[in-house]
Amino acid sequence: MSVYEESLKLHEQLKGKYEVKSLVKVDSKEALSLAYTPGVAQPCLEIKDRPEKAYEVTRKWNTVAVVSDGSAVLGLGNIGGLAGLPVMEGKAVLFKEFADIDSIPIVLSGQDVDDIVLTVKMISPSFGGINLEDIAAPKCFEVERRLKELCDIPVFHDDQHGTAIVVLSAVLCSLRLIQKTIEAASIVVCGAGSAGTAITKLLLRSGAKDVVMVDRLGIVCEGEPWMNSAQAEMAKLTNPEKKRGSLKDAVVGADVFIGVSAPRQLTGDMVRTMAEKPVIFAMANPEPEILPDEAKAAGAFIVGTGRSDYPNQINNVLAFPGVFRGALDVRAKDISEGMKVAAAYALADLVGEKASPEYIIPKAFEPGVAQAVAKAVAEQAVKEGLSRL
Amino acid sequence: MSVYEESLKLHEQLKGKYEVKSLVKVDSKEALSLAYTPGVAQPCLEIKDRPEKAYEVTRKWNTVAVVSDGSAVLGLGNIGGLAGLPVMEGKAVLFKEFADIDSIPIVLSGQDVDDIVLTVKMISPSFGGINLEDIAAPKCFEVERRLKELCDIPVFHDDQHGTAIVVLSAVLCSLRLIQKTIEAASIVVCGAGSAGTAITKLLLRSGAKDVVMVDRLGIVCEGEPWMNSAQAEMAKLTNPEKKRGSLKDAVVGADVFIGVSAPRQLTGDMVRTMAEKPVIFAMANPEPEILPDEAKAAGAFIVGTGRSDYPNQINNVLAFPGVFRGALDVRAKDISEGMKVAAAYALADLVGEKASPEYIIPKAFEPGVAQAVAKAVAEQAVKEGLSRL
Repeated sequence: MSVYEESLKLHEQLKGKYEVKSLVKVDSKEALSLAYTPGVAQPCLEIKDRPEKAYEVTRKWNTVAVVSDGSAVLGLGNIGGLAGLPVMEGKAVLFKEFADIDSIPIVLSGQDVDDIVLTVKMISPSFGGINLEDIAAPKCFEVERRLKELCDIPVFHDDQHGTAIVVLSAVLCSLRLIQKTIEAASIVVCGAGSAGTAITKLLLRSGAKDVVMVDRLGIVCEGEPWMNSAQAEMAKLTNPEKKRGSLKDAVVGADVFIGVSAPRQLTGDMVRTMAEKPVIFAMANPEPEILPDEAKAAGAFIVGTGRSDYPNQINNVLAFPGVFRGALDVRAKDISEGMKVAAAYALADLVGEKASPEYIIPKAFEPGVAQAVAKAVAEQAVKEGLSRL
Repeated sequence: MSVYEESLKLHEQLKGKYEVKSLVKVDSKEALSLAYTPGVAQPCLEIKDRPEKAYEVTRKWNTVAVVSDGSAVLGLGNIGGLAGLPVMEGKAVLFKEFADIDSIPIVLSGQDVDDIVLTVKMISPSFGGINLEDIAAPKCFEVERRLKELCDIPVFHDDQHGTAIVVLSAVLCSLRLIQKTIEAASIVVCGAGSAGTAITKLLLRSGAKDVVMVDRLGIVCEGEPWMNSAQAEMAKLTNPEKKRGSLKDAVVGADVFIGVSAPRQLTGDMVRTMAEKPVIFAMANPEPEILPDEAKAAGAFIVGTGRSDYPNQINNVLAFPGVFRGALDVRAKDISEGMKVAAAYALADLVGEKASPEYIIPKAFEPGVAQAVAKAVAEQAVKEGLSRL
């Protein structure tokens, strides 16, 4: 039985992957009068007088909504919110398992930007954080930007930032191994969608000077007519040498290739044109931009993919549980770029001295990952004045 | 320590009254690949092809959102969504305890009708039903009416219909005791807000011919200038004798008084002008329209209140868990007036031959109540073609 058939069977048996548990027994008139009316009026009035009190008398402190309009689910494309619900329930399971966060799957019936923004803003008081999931680019940028302005709790689009954090961490460890600073490294990001953009921004924020983005129609460069507004914005921040052309042109002399695009984009011949000890992260799903064996044969020094059947799996589960755990622990108002960088360094420090070309990122089930990330994120939030405590 | 102080202490200890539990263990790469990517793609694709499949492979089948804008919370008035969260969490606890329903508290940051309607419609795919709660009248009527049109799952404003179901059931039992048919009974409903309107509609739907509504400014009657649009609508359906005046005028000769208004509206002198064996339901909170002792002294035959410290407590918890359990059990598209009436008859039948002036409604913790209501509601849904099974 394939993993797909087996998963369907599991889902049919479980009929859903989460349930709501009551934390209080209501089995008598007295219990009812404390958990509900009339007693419950008192915590309500306390919150009315001081909204922060909600973190002390409701579950807001530990609750994250996983919100999706289903416009870009896994590699399946725009299947709609309802069809994306099994993914969001899965995400809720991971939040609970990896970071003991209560996470509520919320899939949407509409995909309009204004409607999504209004809806998430409207439901935000119930939650300590919002995890946006599987929303298509470039829409996802506007949705997240506007929600970050409107909401007083963290809003985090995991497809962008979860990936970016784990990639940055892998890049940091890889550069240590090839003894290059991030400032001196030449980096190509293949795929100028939501993940590629977030990765690039986080690399720049961490000191990278030479990042070139490439999309289906070529290198992202100021003046290219095919770019959307988000790509045009990135063209101003990247590609300092104003390279034009295709991926083949971009990778010549590059130290690092980061692929978040489509299968089989990178060839062995291209790898051979890269700098010494090339570092390749080929994360297209289900088939990477180049297969690890082919990359290695062409001289790649380090290869990572999105897959669990090769070494160096770039897996979002290394980031998002700890990021939200840290944010919730200090009742953060936002998840800043600084908090994301702190998360990436925490992951890199977990690898530390144990780093090798086959181990430049912690494994998904390594113990202590979420805790280490949470600690770093929480400390950074406090440092930046983003904590409510 | 008062019930209010004690409740606050409990809430501070619990820090929230619900949690999310994972129903699947994700402790290995293999488990991850079934509960999440890549395997989860299969249930997603099945739902994409056939939306009904969501009831089989996600938790939609058992999940109800409890949604409030906090505009009319308990007797506290408009305290806002966030301050209402302890109530909504309490409601979620009751859903779980009484009917094993997974219920998610969703409190809103805005109170505009269009925004509420859009938000609830947008989040509806995650849920098998929507319980609207503590939304002020007359706004609640429009919110519910529009959402019932827009959503393909049941939308039920409990403050209206939960109360109406339990009151109808109490009226049915009371009329059996005084040997009067509902068609022949003269009924006064004091309080023409959300609960009063829903009670009146359900009484009319069940055969009542002579219902008179009274609000603060007088008897609801066609042509009265002070009525809002919802009250003007009700004026066409009620008060067949076109009575005008105050509550004092309305109750003369009435068989049944139903109060969902404010403390101390009904006097002993007014009760003495009612028909033989007057039936009084005085449900204002925390103090009823008339105290039971006073009503009895003035000749009342049956007295019920909203309070648990007197006999005949009219408590919504008798209705909403079973109503939603029944609706979910048959994947209902709606909760119809017929399903509400069926719920009321199920409650009345539970009392049955045991009925007495001190026992005209089941007690909140009587076993089997939710199950009996659920069975009747589910059967009625099937009868009306509202089931998806």
